[in-house]
Amino acid sequence: MSGTFITFEGPEGAGKTTIIHMVQQKLIQEGYTIVLTREPGGIRIAEQIREIILNPSNTEMDARTEALLYAAARRQHLVEKVIPELNKGNIVLCDRFIDSSLAYQGNARGIGVEDIFAINQFAIEQTMPQATLYFDIEPEVGLERINNGRKDEINRLDLESLDFHYKVRDGYLSLLSEFPERIRRIDANQSVEKVCEEAYKQIKLILK
Amino acid sequence: MSGTFITFEGPEGAGKTTIIHMVQQKLIQEGYTIVLTREPGGIRIAEQIREIILNPSNTEMDARTEALLYAAARRQHLVEKVIPELNKGNIVLCDRFIDSSLAYQGNARGIGVEDIFAINQFAIEQTMPQATLYFDIEPEVGLERINNGRKDEINRLDLESLDFHYKVRDGYLSLLSEFPERIRRIDANQSVEKVCEEAYKQIKLILK
Repeated sequence: MSGTFITFEGPEGAGKTTIIHMVQQKLIQEGYTIVLTREPGGIRIAEQIREIILNPSNTEMDARTEALLYAAARRQHLVEKVIPELNKGNIVLCDRFIDSSLAYQGNARGIGVEDIFAINQFAIEQTMPQATLYFDIEPEVGLERINNGRKDEINRLDLESLDFHYKVRDGYLSLLSEFPERIRRIDANQSVEKVCEEAYKQIKLILK
Repeated sequence: MSGTFITFEGPEGAGKTTIIHMVQQKLIQEGYTIVLTREPGGIRIAEQIREIILNPSNTEMDARTEALLYAAARRQHLVEKVIPELNKGNIVLCDRFIDSSLAYQGNARGIGVEDIFAINQFAIEQTMPQATLYFDIEPEVGLERINNGRKDEINRLDLESLDFHYKVRDGYLSLLSEFPERIRRIDANQSVEKVCEEAYKQIKLILK
């Protein structure tokens, strides 16, 4: 695969979705072909799986069932969308990937990072991102941003306790120390402009 | 868990679904509490997953996506139905379980038995069946039974090639030699009455 696969990670409220769009625009202006995606990415089968995960009436969903469904949706999105774009030599920016499952389900839900890694390795085989930008933010700050900024978009995970968000962050920080070559920390407590500038710089370094 | 968990395995056309019902009746007459089930077993979330797997328009389904979906449905059925019945001390007879994934997806679809075992271990944790009855049949005989007997019930797997069915059988035979304590082979080339009698005897030995 001749393309470059970069993932964006972090808790809700870190601003990564805003940043990924800003960075994409800057790179497109410079002539790069950028494919921006996020799971389930409009892939029919992955959308069907996502519907089961997010269906608010599925309250009896077991945490391991959920983890397997995320891995299944990830597989289909990867095979149908990410890999073909990488094969064309394009730059793929993906909003969340394997590290989200490791931090949220492995660490915060308590299933264990190793077990979540194993089923995700089955799903992605060798296709790990070349680089991952991790948008780090204090859980209180992230939660405040969610509560102030976008009340109409609140999702199931936004409603988890502060304790849960601390565990998500701990999960990410552990991954950061485990994969220091792949994951680059960006301080998302700063202004959007500063965060965007830093993300842009990091990506330019990766593309060199 | 105080109950007994017994699974029924074998290719299509081996007659195991007929046999499992006959054996259940015999055991109920003797006063046993028998819970007969098969995935997805009426479990809402597992049924939703099954719909995605069986949806004939989902032709782009990747084999690993399918394997993860089977494991997810298995997990939910196990947690909501099988384990609670075992906890009540009941005998659970389950038509297909982990060995089907190992034989069909691990061996016949070529993903590899070890990898399929890993994601299924994530799904079932420690809940392996105490015993498994494997209904062994020559692929040609099984296919002939399918083609003659039940044209209106033919499913996606019945339509696979003879070569595929040979690989399924090879998969089961490998499992039989790998788990000789757990898996008991029953010759399903015999008459239904003989096969039922043998399955019944085996189960009585397990329940002793």
